[in-house]
Amino acid sequence: MTGNALDAAPAAGRPRDPEVDRRVLRAAAEVFGEDGWGRFTVDAVARRAGVGKASIYLRWPNKKELLASCLEARVTPVADIDTGSVREDLVRLAGQMLTSFFGDSGRVTTRLLMDADRIPGVAERVKELRQSQVLAARAIVRRGIARGELKSGTSVTLLLDAIVGGCLNHALSTPDELRGRVGEGLTDYAEQLVDFVLGAVTAG
Amino acid sequence: MTGNALDAAPAAGRPRDPEVDRRVLRAAAEVFGEDGWGRFTVDAVARRAGVGKASIYLRWPNKKELLASCLEARVTPVADIDTGSVREDLVRLAGQMLTSFFGDSGRVTTRLLMDADRIPGVAERVKELRQSQVLAARAIVRRGIARGELKSGTSVTLLLDAIVGGCLNHALSTPDELRGRVGEGLTDYAEQLVDFVLGAVTAG
Repeated sequence: MTGNALDAAPAAGRPRDPEVDRRVLRAAAEVFGEDGWGRFTVDAVARRAGVGKASIYLRWPNKKELLASCLEARVTPVADIDTGSVREDLVRLAGQMLTSFFGDSGRVTTRLLMDADRIPGVAERVKELRQSQVLAARAIVRRGIARGELKSGTSVTLLLDAIVGGCLNHALSTPDELRGRVGEGLTDYAEQLVDFVLGAVTAG
Repeated sequence: MTGNALDAAPAAGRPRDPEVDRRVLRAAAEVFGEDGWGRFTVDAVARRAGVGKASIYLRWPNKKELLASCLEARVTPVADIDTGSVREDLVRLAGQMLTSFFGDSGRVTTRLLMDADRIPGVAERVKELRQSQVLAARAIVRRGIARGELKSGTSVTLLLDAIVGGCLNHALSTPDELRGRVGEGLTDYAEQLVDFVLGAVTAG
C-alpha cells in the first residue's frame, strides 16, 4: 500500500478502525518523541505502526494533522479537575502532568513544548491546547482563593510556575535509567510538591 | 576555504583568534537553537559565522566537540554563587537560569536539556556539567539550612524543583513575541519567585 494524496482530502479525519487509529497515534508519538520533527514522516510512522501509508492518509491529510491529533489524544483536559479542594485539584493537575511527562513516549509532550512553535500548522493547535489548559489551571487557583483556602493576594502565576515547573524539572532531571523507578512514585511526588508549595500560601 | 579533517586532530581546541572563536560559538548556538541537532552541521555553523569550515576544524575536531564547547561557554557556574544569604544565592541562581533561558538564542539551553541524551559524545559532557550545577545548587540550600535560614527538614529537591522548574516554566510559557518585554523583568521575576517559594520554608 502506498499513500495517495487523493485519498486524503474528503474523508480525512473519519477513523475506520479505532484500533488502527490508536496504533498509528502511538507510533506517531514514539517517532516524534525519539527523533523530533526533523525525522517525523508519514512513512516512518506507518512503518512503526505496521500499517500502510494509505491507511494514515485516509485519516489525516498530512503529517501536521497527524501530529496535532497525536498530541490532542494524549492530553487529559485540566478543565475536568474540580474536586472542591484546591490541594486535591493541584495534586491531580501535578499527577496528570507527571504521568504525561513520564508515561510511554513521554518526551512527546516535553519535546512539543520546545518544538511546536517552529512547526507551522501544528504551532497554532498546540498554542490553543496549551492556552485552554493554562486557563483551566488558573481557574483552579482562583477557586482556591475564592473559597478562602489560599491567601487573597496569592500570585496565580508564581504558584503555577512552581508546581507545573516543578513537575517539568522533576521529569527533565530524572535520567533515563531511573525513569521506570521514579515513575512508580509519581503520586507521592505530586502530593509532596503541592504540599511544599502550598506551605507558602495556604490561608490561616 | 574548505574543511579538512587533517587540520583537525593535533591542534584541536587551541583558539587562534578569540574573536573568531566567539563568532563561531555564537553561530553554533543559533543554529542549534533554531534547528536542533538534526540540522546541526559544521557547514551550517561556518556559513552563519561567516568563516571557512577549516577555521572551525582547526579549533574543534568535530561537531560534537563544537556543540559541547558552545554549551560550556554559555553556562555560568553555580558554584561561584555564595553570598552568605540563601535568599540572595537563590535569586542569583534563578537570575542566571532566566538569563540563559531568555538570552540570545536561549533555546540552546532548553533544547539541550531535551536533546542531549540522544547525542552520543555530547550527552556525557552535558550530564557532567548539569551534575556539577545541580550539586552546587544543592549546596546553596544546604548552607541555608546549616545557617538556620531554612527549616531543618526542608526538602532540597522540592525547593530546587520549584525554583529551577519555575524559571523553566516561565521561559517556556512566554510566547516568542513577548520574550523581549518579559526579558526586561527577569530580575524582578527571580526575586518574586524565590520569595514566593521561600515563604513555605523560611525558619521563624
